[in-house]
Amino acid sequence: MPEAAGAAAAAALSPGRESFGSRLGRAMADRGPLCVGIDPHPALLDSWGLNDDAAGLERFSLTVLEAVGSLAAAVKPQVALYERHGSAGMAALERTLAAAAEAGVLSIADAKRGDIGSTMAAYADAWLRDGSSLAADSVTLSPYLGFESLRPALDLAAEYGRGVFVLALTSNPEGASVQHVGGSDSVARRIVQAAAGENARYAGPLGSVGLVVGATVGTALADLHLDLEAVRGPILAPGLGAQGATPADLRRTFGPAYPQVLGTSSRDILKAGPGIRELTDAAARTLDGLRAE
Amino acid sequence: MPEAAGAAAAAALSPGRESFGSRLGRAMADRGPLCVGIDPHPALLDSWGLNDDAAGLERFSLTVLEAVGSLAAAVKPQVALYERHGSAGMAALERTLAAAAEAGVLSIADAKRGDIGSTMAAYADAWLRDGSSLAADSVTLSPYLGFESLRPALDLAAEYGRGVFVLALTSNPEGASVQHVGGSDSVARRIVQAAAGENARYAGPLGSVGLVVGATVGTALADLHLDLEAVRGPILAPGLGAQGATPADLRRTFGPAYPQVLGTSSRDILKAGPGIRELTDAAARTLDGLRAE
Repeated sequence: MPEAAGAAAAAALSPGRESFGSRLGRAMADRGPLCVGIDPHPALLDSWGLNDDAAGLERFSLTVLEAVGSLAAAVKPQVALYERHGSAGMAALERTLAAAAEAGVLSIADAKRGDIGSTMAAYADAWLRDGSSLAADSVTLSPYLGFESLRPALDLAAEYGRGVFVLALTSNPEGASVQHVGGSDSVARRIVQAAAGENARYAGPLGSVGLVVGATVGTALADLHLDLEAVRGPILAPGLGAQGATPADLRRTFGPAYPQVLGTSSRDILKAGPGIRELTDAAARTLDGLRAE
Repeated sequence: MPEAAGAAAAAALSPGRESFGSRLGRAMADRGPLCVGIDPHPALLDSWGLNDDAAGLERFSLTVLEAVGSLAAAVKPQVALYERHGSAGMAALERTLAAAAEAGVLSIADAKRGDIGSTMAAYADAWLRDGSSLAADSVTLSPYLGFESLRPALDLAAEYGRGVFVLALTSNPEGASVQHVGGSDSVARRIVQAAAGENARYAGPLGSVGLVVGATVGTALADLHLDLEAVRGPILAPGLGAQGATPADLRRTFGPAYPQVLGTSSRDILKAGPGIRELTDAAARTLDGLRAE
């Protein structure tokens, strides 16, 4: 089955809901293109004077939200760091996601989930359905089982005005052994093209199917002939700050697709904590850099 | 970095622990090569007269364990179906994993996790570290970010006598758009070869790095020149029963690698519930079929 076939038979968009792409585009225009990662790593918890337990995770997360909730376009809790503490950690994540919604900042649950059929539908239920305790505005997905295997999440996101970010091209050195394979029809290019096809269902400048593309992928976008502008979806670009990319690097890497880019910074901002003012200032500085480009 | 480089610099095996591969090989020899999926799908919960909530999940899971815990080599809870109920569902999964350990049956947490660096280390902590409330005997992983990105889990598994099953070649039609890409050096072949390299660190007939290969992949193993025998790891083969594969199909598909295959059946056994005896009988019939091959 061609990757784009599913879009034609897609579930109807919910007429009463604003799409995630539209909501995110508005937030990026109003606030600037910054996503702050909420990454309660053990070392960060320690440097903030918090315990490496569920209570520490929650305190950390709510502090970040207090500092950047009215400044950033989105926040991105890293699910692995909550899951590390089992069900108690996941309860802290539930409270974090609820607090983000109350603060009026969009949430991206960085879960990198992926499966097939009714199992994929269960992940979609967990992260994208109204009434789920883990419901976020969007979730990151991993397409090793094929872009179309993510169909239940693509359709549920459309129905509920939520979004997804699909892993496409990452900057870790090991990623090339999967993502670059296939020459002119590489795995990464197939994912990019499938996302473009999927966003045809959305009106407006920005669809609700985003991609994860590393901020430090260098020339790989050109080398693999990836047309991110044609995707018409948001691009989540981790790697700003601590991982080495500057806003100018983002502009250079993404070129004409730069207006779609949601720059993501985690440690570079979080290390300024635990003081609220210091965190806010660090986020504002990053945002200024992104806006200047 | 070549995929096999990490194995050379691998963390030391824990000398006091029996490896997962060794434990699983013994269970397969003693009990037969059957893994029973614990898949509390909403429709199954309903047909068993259970509520679609955390209490229903737990009742379902403990019933399956009571029925097959002394019969199957392993059980495989499908994490998505617990995550669907948020932290309460994950607490039910914690109790399920603890009950499996008490029953003396090996557990495979079917989570399909994958990330990089310290985030991947957090997933490894969650599923493979002693003392984690979600610790299982093994976990399934997804390699879209490259086989080597899974390094923290590969090393932690070795250290704690636990195991992993890495997605390699699946039988859903969309899987080919990623896994078959690359011709004679396909994505699936790279994963298979990396797993083989990784199992060189383990003595004995079966290493602790397994693969997920669909029971109904047909001729794809031959078409893609995948040498599963050389992997020397267990092969988790979902698709027995409800998804269309018979034990004879498994033998035909996997050929000389059949002794490594852990046939996995879920719905075909689970639909016999909620009666304990009916579940046990259904599992025993599947096991007889696998043993006859």
